[in-house]
Amino acid sequence: MSKSTPQYETIAIVGVGLIGGSIALAARQRGLCRDVLGVGRNLDRLQLARTQGLVDRVATDIAELATADLTVICTPVNRVAQDVLEAMQQMPTGSLITDAGSVKAPICEAVQQEPKSSGMFVGSHPLAGSHRSGFEYADGSLFVGRKCVVTPVPSSPTALVRQVREFWEQLGMVVHLMSPTEHDRVLALTSHLPHLAAAAVAGLVDESCVELAASGFRDTTRVAAGDPELWTAIFESNSVQLRAALDELIGSLQQYRTALDSGSSADIRNLLTIAQQRRLEFEKRFVRPGD
Amino acid sequence: MSKSTPQYETIAIVGVGLIGGSIALAARQRGLCRDVLGVGRNLDRLQLARTQGLVDRVATDIAELATADLTVICTPVNRVAQDVLEAMQQMPTGSLITDAGSVKAPICEAVQQEPKSSGMFVGSHPLAGSHRSGFEYADGSLFVGRKCVVTPVPSSPTALVRQVREFWEQLGMVVHLMSPTEHDRVLALTSHLPHLAAAAVAGLVDESCVELAASGFRDTTRVAAGDPELWTAIFESNSVQLRAALDELIGSLQQYRTALDSGSSADIRNLLTIAQQRRLEFEKRFVRPGD
Repeated sequence: MSKSTPQYETIAIVGVGLIGGSIALAARQRGLCRDVLGVGRNLDRLQLARTQGLVDRVATDIAELATADLTVICTPVNRVAQDVLEAMQQMPTGSLITDAGSVKAPICEAVQQEPKSSGMFVGSHPLAGSHRSGFEYADGSLFVGRKCVVTPVPSSPTALVRQVREFWEQLGMVVHLMSPTEHDRVLALTSHLPHLAAAAVAGLVDESCVELAASGFRDTTRVAAGDPELWTAIFESNSVQLRAALDELIGSLQQYRTALDSGSSADIRNLLTIAQQRRLEFEKRFVRPGD
Repeated sequence: MSKSTPQYETIAIVGVGLIGGSIALAARQRGLCRDVLGVGRNLDRLQLARTQGLVDRVATDIAELATADLTVICTPVNRVAQDVLEAMQQMPTGSLITDAGSVKAPICEAVQQEPKSSGMFVGSHPLAGSHRSGFEYADGSLFVGRKCVVTPVPSSPTALVRQVREFWEQLGMVVHLMSPTEHDRVLALTSHLPHLAAAAVAGLVDESCVELAASGFRDTTRVAAGDPELWTAIFESNSVQLRAALDELIGSLQQYRTALDSGSSADIRNLLTIAQQRRLEFEKRFVRPGD
């Protein structure tokens, strides 16, 4: 097999879980680098990830990032900013850092406090995942056809933004550029609020009625099975935008309440018709391989 | 093929849509009757249903029910009570009426006003369906392994309840007995409220953010694609129980709001953990062939 020169020498993944492991695997499978370095806290887990062929080298010492020309921070969202700042201190000039955190403004704002960040860091959010966690479920094709939001700030150099964009595109993703704040507003409405609503609905169905829950309940509450630790961190990180979205939802539910109180069929039908239209608009746009 | 004597001479279906058509098909396939009579308002549609092999005979005149020994009312939930009362006037002594409406207390209470109802009618709710409507999607195996709630009232004769129960069991369903009011309370929490919540969440995602809606949004809002007319009727029929459930949901969302305001990780984590446990409890119990 002929070998072309890979784009990167070393891609480092900090936090080798489902997402980090899948990025590692996809980068290796696509020949984006000579080697993948896995960095984390738990050496046993890292060595297992190496045995399973996800990474080439492992380290628990962040100083190892001195050998990386691209680092992707895949730790829980409430640890990303700190990890980016620490990675930045280790990495050589001209190297690049991005992340996979699902909330962007708090990360990008914290990182910007460090002046040299603008030449090294651009935030990312690959919209891919699973209700499973752990690198055991890593999948090199997890990103194919999915969307990734890259969130430059005004000081981000164009070339850096392009490089981050290309990285995700090389993993098969469709990249959108957006400000960190706009990303967080949109994700609050499309992901974090649906999760919260699903959890609130699931939380009301106890032993006295679970027996009759059927396919509507199954789908509406599916995401409520997600890891409470992970989602607590997401909710807190995106607290400002999530609270605004939550107030909108409560307002909408109160409209339904008023319509039910007054017995106004027309009002209920109008609310349900707008919802149906928006859902159908989503269905028209949401096309993903394998779905 | 040998023919055993079927249990019924004529089963009549009033309202030959997805559910009515599927009951007709299932009854024919399982040899429960000599013939199936389809009753409705639109003769063209009824004749098409006959051409497609769902029913043997059709009628737009409810007087034809004089020939039926079992009638299943499958009209929209806000028409069921009236249709049961009319059917009862036509049907012979010793015949049986049930329905497939997804709200039970208003139907059972209205029907009970007619003294002879107790000897002829027991309400039912087969928990089966699809986001599709129309007999074109009728499926004789729609009911297999699904649950059906049969809702006797104190005056319902045991033999009648047993006969209705057996009818649904013959279509492959798992039957639960429950009072009409308890049914409506449980369905408000497990079906009607999830639908309302899904619609409220879908209604907030407009052009400015639908592009990034992903699989969490897809599942949480799936049922919002349902027919607004149908669901307006369900919401109104079950208004008392749905409003109580909706108040519980708003209360729960306000707990999340308070927890986010105070920045209390522990409170958010507790809410999400209860939700996760209830969802996992549901998953443990929800086993259905083909899922």
